[in-house]
Amino acid sequence: MANGRGKTMENKRIYMDYSATTPVKKEVLDEMLPYFNEGFGNASSFYSYGHEAKEALELARTRVAALINAEPNEIYFTAGGSESDNWAIKGVAFDLQRKGKGNHIITSKIEHHAILHTCEYLEKNFGFEVTYLDVDEEGKVSPEALENAIKDNTILISIMFANNEIGTVEPIKELVEVAKKHKILFHTDAVQAAGNIPVDVKELGVDMVSMSSHKIYGPKGVGALFIRRGLRFDNLVHGGAQEKRRRAGTENIPAIVGYGKAAELAKANMDNHIKELTRLRNKLIEGVKERIPYTRINGSLEDRLPGNANFAFKFIEGEGILLLLNHAGISGSSGSACTSGSLDPSHVLLAIGLPHEIAHGSLRLTVGDFTTDEDIDYILEVLPKVIERLRSMSPLYEEALQAEGK
Amino acid sequence: MANGRGKTMENKRIYMDYSATTPVKKEVLDEMLPYFNEGFGNASSFYSYGHEAKEALELARTRVAALINAEPNEIYFTAGGSESDNWAIKGVAFDLQRKGKGNHIITSKIEHHAILHTCEYLEKNFGFEVTYLDVDEEGKVSPEALENAIKDNTILISIMFANNEIGTVEPIKELVEVAKKHKILFHTDAVQAAGNIPVDVKELGVDMVSMSSHKIYGPKGVGALFIRRGLRFDNLVHGGAQEKRRRAGTENIPAIVGYGKAAELAKANMDNHIKELTRLRNKLIEGVKERIPYTRINGSLEDRLPGNANFAFKFIEGEGILLLLNHAGISGSSGSACTSGSLDPSHVLLAIGLPHEIAHGSLRLTVGDFTTDEDIDYILEVLPKVIERLRSMSPLYEEALQAEGK
Repeated sequence: MANGRGKTMENKRIYMDYSATTPVKKEVLDEMLPYFNEGFGNASSFYSYGHEAKEALELARTRVAALINAEPNEIYFTAGGSESDNWAIKGVAFDLQRKGKGNHIITSKIEHHAILHTCEYLEKNFGFEVTYLDVDEEGKVSPEALENAIKDNTILISIMFANNEIGTVEPIKELVEVAKKHKILFHTDAVQAAGNIPVDVKELGVDMVSMSSHKIYGPKGVGALFIRRGLRFDNLVHGGAQEKRRRAGTENIPAIVGYGKAAELAKANMDNHIKELTRLRNKLIEGVKERIPYTRINGSLEDRLPGNANFAFKFIEGEGILLLLNHAGISGSSGSACTSGSLDPSHVLLAIGLPHEIAHGSLRLTVGDFTTDEDIDYILEVLPKVIERLRSMSPLYEEALQAEGK
Repeated sequence: MANGRGKTMENKRIYMDYSATTPVKKEVLDEMLPYFNEGFGNASSFYSYGHEAKEALELARTRVAALINAEPNEIYFTAGGSESDNWAIKGVAFDLQRKGKGNHIITSKIEHHAILHTCEYLEKNFGFEVTYLDVDEEGKVSPEALENAIKDNTILISIMFANNEIGTVEPIKELVEVAKKHKILFHTDAVQAAGNIPVDVKELGVDMVSMSSHKIYGPKGVGALFIRRGLRFDNLVHGGAQEKRRRAGTENIPAIVGYGKAAELAKANMDNHIKELTRLRNKLIEGVKERIPYTRINGSLEDRLPGNANFAFKFIEGEGILLLLNHAGISGSSGSACTSGSLDPSHVLLAIGLPHEIAHGSLRLTVGDFTTDEDIDYILEVLPKVIERLRSMSPLYEEALQAEGK
């Protein structure tokens, strides 16, 4: 992997936070570069510069569509997953509320904050009612619970495809079936899924899908919203006529081109990507379980994003783990990147039933296409020492050992 | 200029649409590149990768702030000018309406569609009342007209700094003074201005300023909203805690770094940039006036963006001009890029009093940092022939000649 900036104690840099963001692959960057200063024209313009940009834009749209088995004209480019989430939720909510269809939204307690905070905003300020479904201890939303939550005024259901913290893949097909039975629109935040695991909008029957480029080795600042053909609702960004008048702003051609290439690579490599990441992640999980006592693996072991490992280490704090790992050159995360800076424990870990003190001791390590067996070996060497060192300073750990008579 | 793709009749490619978008300067791209795959970390993350990204982010914020004499903590990065406009208008409108401060917004008839369509959306769907101020024949909003439009329920005034089509620079300082007298918030869309001409938020006293990177040789997909310190209103994109919890989404570090560099270059080169672009633009305008009869120069000749030339050629259609110019390798525009694809004449040209048939015959040519004297010479050779050829096919032109007895 192209890194090597800066030095640590061990002079190593092992990136284990692919769910937060990924480096741009060389093939992707190579395809983007000409569009910064050669094919830089405004895609909405008339002249040749604009035509070249427009062609590149439409090729990228085709590639991103193919990734989720959509039609190209169902793909709308945005600035990223958060914008896509905001657009889908607010756009549908305002439109259907105005039409008198209702004001009730159903989502889950483990959604990304781009969904949760958007729903809270609508609830607080625009007269919406939101049901936040509980999840089971693996983080799954049950179709029965969804069915029971539906009311006459329900206009929208939004359940994520796969969770960004614990990696749990939701039973989307079953959940969509419930929504369809009641003729309610279904949105899924597939920011972690689309490009990492198969997502097929035709098979699933979903109405809207949020996607992001920088989670699949494409550039930051670009994402997409899949909108099923014929479905209309309010814009989020009003202005120019771009994206069939549904998302204003000069098209970000280099980034969109990069996203298209990343999508193409992801689709072509998906089987191998899943196999290899799953192998490395299982090696990590098994190794940690063997070496570190009082450890809980969060999330489902079966229905899980291939790259995700999420641990709760009893008696200690996630912050301390991250600090010592970082000192040893290993980049992990505690909860999601988006919530860092907050002292609250992860809403996801609380929702799957972890008590506050255990949720605080969680560590997410996510492997990606540049992770090697040597990286995992090194982590399995370092992490047990880090945990042991932190626990040796923890009075809770001492009490636990004493209780066990050790 | 780095172009040269494709061939035209003349094998030339002269880009004359810098107001639509600009190529990314080499120094800018060079500074961006490491952040795609080396310093790619999530700026909101804990570890070293994240720290490097965070440092780069804050340096860029300082540079963009300096461009408009703001404090760095008053700069919020967005995905571009349209998002900034939407955020400022909707954010303030929803917040102040909810607080019972009023529901009246004042803007002008020549704003960018990101302002106009946002205002229309609020008007149509959320109970707002919007006054669209007339402009004079140069495209200027008068402070008196603004004063007269203010009512007890006015909560926001949004007047653009400089117009994207005709280049007219508005008397923002005087307009802000009127707003301040009535304690009403003032937003300005400075997408065309910030980085091309001096914008000083401290001197002007504006409350919000929309800015964009790709109009000043920075990358697409990134912009900023200046928000005066202490001013709070609704978010547009809810979610993670980025940008002090005011604009969610993983920070687009490479693009933000590029915008920062572009802002730094723009500030350092501004005097020369203005002098040189003004010289080239005047050469173009004077040359066209000399060579082509029945031509009107749209916009103000004094208070004008340095790079902007906007002509109305009587008796013919803008589309035809663009086609023939493009065939000769010259990229211009008719109206703004954002409205292309529409058959309506420019709302800006109509607002300055041009009749429909003349507004249809308009041509915008905008020079930039890569424009040369040879480019202007070539245009002055080609454009008169293009206009003459089109007019020779126009019955209106024949009638006009006959009326003059030619």
